[in-house]
Amino acid sequence: MSDQAKFQAAQKTIVRNEQFIRMADELKPELFNEEVEPTQLVRVEADETAMHGWRAVRDAEIDALENRELGKGQSAIADFGDHRVGYVSFEVRPVGSPPDAPLKLRLTFGEMPVEMAVPFASYKGWISSSWLQEETLYVDVLPGKVILPRRYSFRYMKIEVLDTSPKYRVSFFNLKCATVTSAYRANVIPLDHADPLLSDIDRVSVKTLEDCMQDVFEDGPKRDRRLWLGDLRLQALANYATFRNDVLVKRCLYLFAGVPDERGRVSANLFIAPELIADDTYLFDYSLFFTVTLYDYYEATGDAVTLKDLWPIARRQVELALERLDDRGVVRDEETWWSFIDWHESLNKQAPSHAVLIYALRRASRLAEAVGCASEGEFERRLTDAERAAMEALWDADQGFFVSGEERQVSWAAQIWMALAEVLPREENKALMKRLLTQRPEISPTTPYMYHHLAEALLAVGLKDEAVEFIKSYWGGMLKNGADTFWELYDPGNPDFSPYGSPLINSYCHAWSCTPTYLIRHYRL
Amino acid sequence: MSDQAKFQAAQKTIVRNEQFIRMADELKPELFNEEVEPTQLVRVEADETAMHGWRAVRDAEIDALENRELGKGQSAIADFGDHRVGYVSFEVRPVGSPPDAPLKLRLTFGEMPVEMAVPFASYKGWISSSWLQEETLYVDVLPGKVILPRRYSFRYMKIEVLDTSPKYRVSFFNLKCATVTSAYRANVIPLDHADPLLSDIDRVSVKTLEDCMQDVFEDGPKRDRRLWLGDLRLQALANYATFRNDVLVKRCLYLFAGVPDERGRVSANLFIAPELIADDTYLFDYSLFFTVTLYDYYEATGDAVTLKDLWPIARRQVELALERLDDRGVVRDEETWWSFIDWHESLNKQAPSHAVLIYALRRASRLAEAVGCASEGEFERRLTDAERAAMEALWDADQGFFVSGEERQVSWAAQIWMALAEVLPREENKALMKRLLTQRPEISPTTPYMYHHLAEALLAVGLKDEAVEFIKSYWGGMLKNGADTFWELYDPGNPDFSPYGSPLINSYCHAWSCTPTYLIRHYRL
Repeated sequence: MSDQAKFQAAQKTIVRNEQFIRMADELKPELFNEEVEPTQLVRVEADETAMHGWRAVRDAEIDALENRELGKGQSAIADFGDHRVGYVSFEVRPVGSPPDAPLKLRLTFGEMPVEMAVPFASYKGWISSSWLQEETLYVDVLPGKVILPRRYSFRYMKIEVLDTSPKYRVSFFNLKCATVTSAYRANVIPLDHADPLLSDIDRVSVKTLEDCMQDVFEDGPKRDRRLWLGDLRLQALANYATFRNDVLVKRCLYLFAGVPDERGRVSANLFIAPELIADDTYLFDYSLFFTVTLYDYYEATGDAVTLKDLWPIARRQVELALERLDDRGVVRDEETWWSFIDWHESLNKQAPSHAVLIYALRRASRLAEAVGCASEGEFERRLTDAERAAMEALWDADQGFFVSGEERQVSWAAQIWMALAEVLPREENKALMKRLLTQRPEISPTTPYMYHHLAEALLAVGLKDEAVEFIKSYWGGMLKNGADTFWELYDPGNPDFSPYGSPLINSYCHAWSCTPTYLIRHYRL
Repeated sequence: MSDQAKFQAAQKTIVRNEQFIRMADELKPELFNEEVEPTQLVRVEADETAMHGWRAVRDAEIDALENRELGKGQSAIADFGDHRVGYVSFEVRPVGSPPDAPLKLRLTFGEMPVEMAVPFASYKGWISSSWLQEETLYVDVLPGKVILPRRYSFRYMKIEVLDTSPKYRVSFFNLKCATVTSAYRANVIPLDHADPLLSDIDRVSVKTLEDCMQDVFEDGPKRDRRLWLGDLRLQALANYATFRNDVLVKRCLYLFAGVPDERGRVSANLFIAPELIADDTYLFDYSLFFTVTLYDYYEATGDAVTLKDLWPIARRQVELALERLDDRGVVRDEETWWSFIDWHESLNKQAPSHAVLIYALRRASRLAEAVGCASEGEFERRLTDAERAAMEALWDADQGFFVSGEERQVSWAAQIWMALAEVLPREENKALMKRLLTQRPEISPTTPYMYHHLAEALLAVGLKDEAVEFIKSYWGGMLKNGADTFWELYDPGNPDFSPYGSPLINSYCHAWSCTPTYLIRHYRL
């Protein structure tokens, strides 16, 4: 993952399905607004024991902001009390002589204290610095109201006065955030759980999902603010257990179905504005998740009309995946970034991707049955073949693990996905997961996305206690480290980990981390 | 002038005249728009022989801009062909993969090549850096149209791509400036002058005035964008000879008359938005220029209604100035920044300020006569007294110069203003100016504002050839150095001079430099 070449896929021809796109447009959600104010002023202090080495500590009550007269070089940090996604406005009034020069401000928005402490100019990571939430702006007319046109994802907002003039200072009033979400909070059934930690984890999961639910299911409201299939699948599951904005799932499915390539393959992610565009990133596992997400949607809603509409696209993803099988009937490996699975530098994707294919085939077969499609039988046969190929080519009986790639890598990801794909008989599947927890191979999960699959695999094989323990330690670990929403990335052993080169650019409210509410509620943990 | 303490005047109580303010509001001018496009792309090159050491040289035709694909760290400079004041817009389109991160741009607007070459971050001068015309902005949705809300004053616009993402670059289209001015160009009678240099100087003077004529007569559209009495007086004179937007002069007079302090004194400058505020800067000479500007307005228009309305305020400025006379009948000197006269670190203001008082008294007396005010006789007597005091206390017969302050400073400013005040008999006045040109005292003019008064003093005493020669060398010098409009500051011997600490912050389209068109046309040079 050391360079971006992995993203440079060949140009694809997109075959637009205008009927699907129109359908998706008609399902555009209402956005709910709430006006929230900051709760206190804080300062950030270096603290080795805190996440990223920075802690936000109370500086003053929020009312103190109005009384502060900030001159050149002075600043204040407002704490909005919780994670917020929305539009910020404030009033600014001059103090002293009439303002004889424009006011120059820098505003910095951060989800975490580190974003308030470390200058963004120090960021040298490989993805765009334009994700860092910072504005430099001028106020020509004072007193004035500043209504920022961009949406921010943040808890902390730093206001720095870069310049006024020697004749005046400024004070800030009516600092507000008009939050936006397409999640309707009243729909969530309160969770009355005996374990307060699980209650907390559920609450923060729901908040994470809420803040990612916008015009579409975004992966993260700070970054990338985009509809990715891998995230959508998990958000949809969490949504069925909470907000029940099933129409938003439907909309997203139609969006993906609206812009397949000339072979019928759906993209890994979509751009929505100014017009719907399929990204030129195609991932083996993500394309299959279209089928899986449709399966979950149908399970949750019984919406046979949508199933019938989208079935040809769902079927096509599986057919295309099957074309990738080699002589042994195993998904062909490749040096490029062909399948996602997890952010891990050394992870071989073959075995886990083959498992994703099996997982999807099983569901495709059931959908084929539901729509009465002739491919049901074919998919059943291919499922059996794929399972047999997995056992013949990827199962290492001596080690008791599935191996992946030419170098026969034993990874957590391969075992987790094979367990979810139910390749082994029930008891052997459980034994596999137990062995995994005991032997702990070196190539381990790096993201909440992979950790979700670990937790769900434990539940799938019946290791409920282990799953609960793990959820409490992993997502609970984020809570201990100050999470208001769950993060894109959290490696307990390496809290500064970022696949992008700096924790400044990580997203700290990320869809793929919102799943504990689904796990807790769906599996009645 | 080394620190800003000079600006810190005591708080004044303002006595608002709502009738005058309403009158001024009703006279708000129509703004004329013109859409202009850049003419070429340029680059800036170091050149010791060029103004500030930088020269703009042609890089490519403007059509090349659309074909340039700019990635992170790349830039282009558009040349709008002439000085422009207005609102800029452009379209930006992505090239490559769909934009997977916001576009981060820095836009820099400059009246002079130096502003394109020297980073604004290097500015360390004492007035606010917020005058430097720069924007850092994000474009979240691409392709997109960017309509910048602020007005800029510029010829050159640098577009820097601070970041995109590794997946895309951008191209720029339809770059435009919608210019604004309250000057109606068709009103200007073309000047058909035999001397092409004077024709050029007239043309650039008119352009300078045009770009400063907005909602009010601004001192400079880049900086301070404000209505100053000293500038207004000269702009009004240039306006009578060109655009004849006499109503705008009237509006500005009513604005000043609308917010005098509790003693009836008018401020040196006004803030117009969001509401009319008198700045807390009061200058001896500038307050008197209210009376002088009303005199000039009445001379130009014969508008007796306005004269009658505003006469009490005009009279009051003179009365207040007379209160400053000492036992000898001479204007009292002071260590503070009590009178403007010129930007010169060592200039003593006493003698030139006394001359301004005489100059204003002479005109106040004529206005008193015009309105049939009893103070006419009183003003006549005070004029005679002030002239006698000047001769007794300030005239040094041995040197043949007026002296100023305790240290009996001989400055150009004192002689120039005494000549304009016509204190000496006609021939002696002429001899004074000749002596000035020969002996060239050390304390010389530093601004076009003071140079204007030098030129007009030469004309007033009948030294027409010398005046023309001087206009051609001084304003012609700016033209040789690449002026599109005349500058706030130009010292031929020290082209980098700035009273603010850096030529970056100087205004290169400045009202007080627009007077050659008045001198050329009014005096038929």
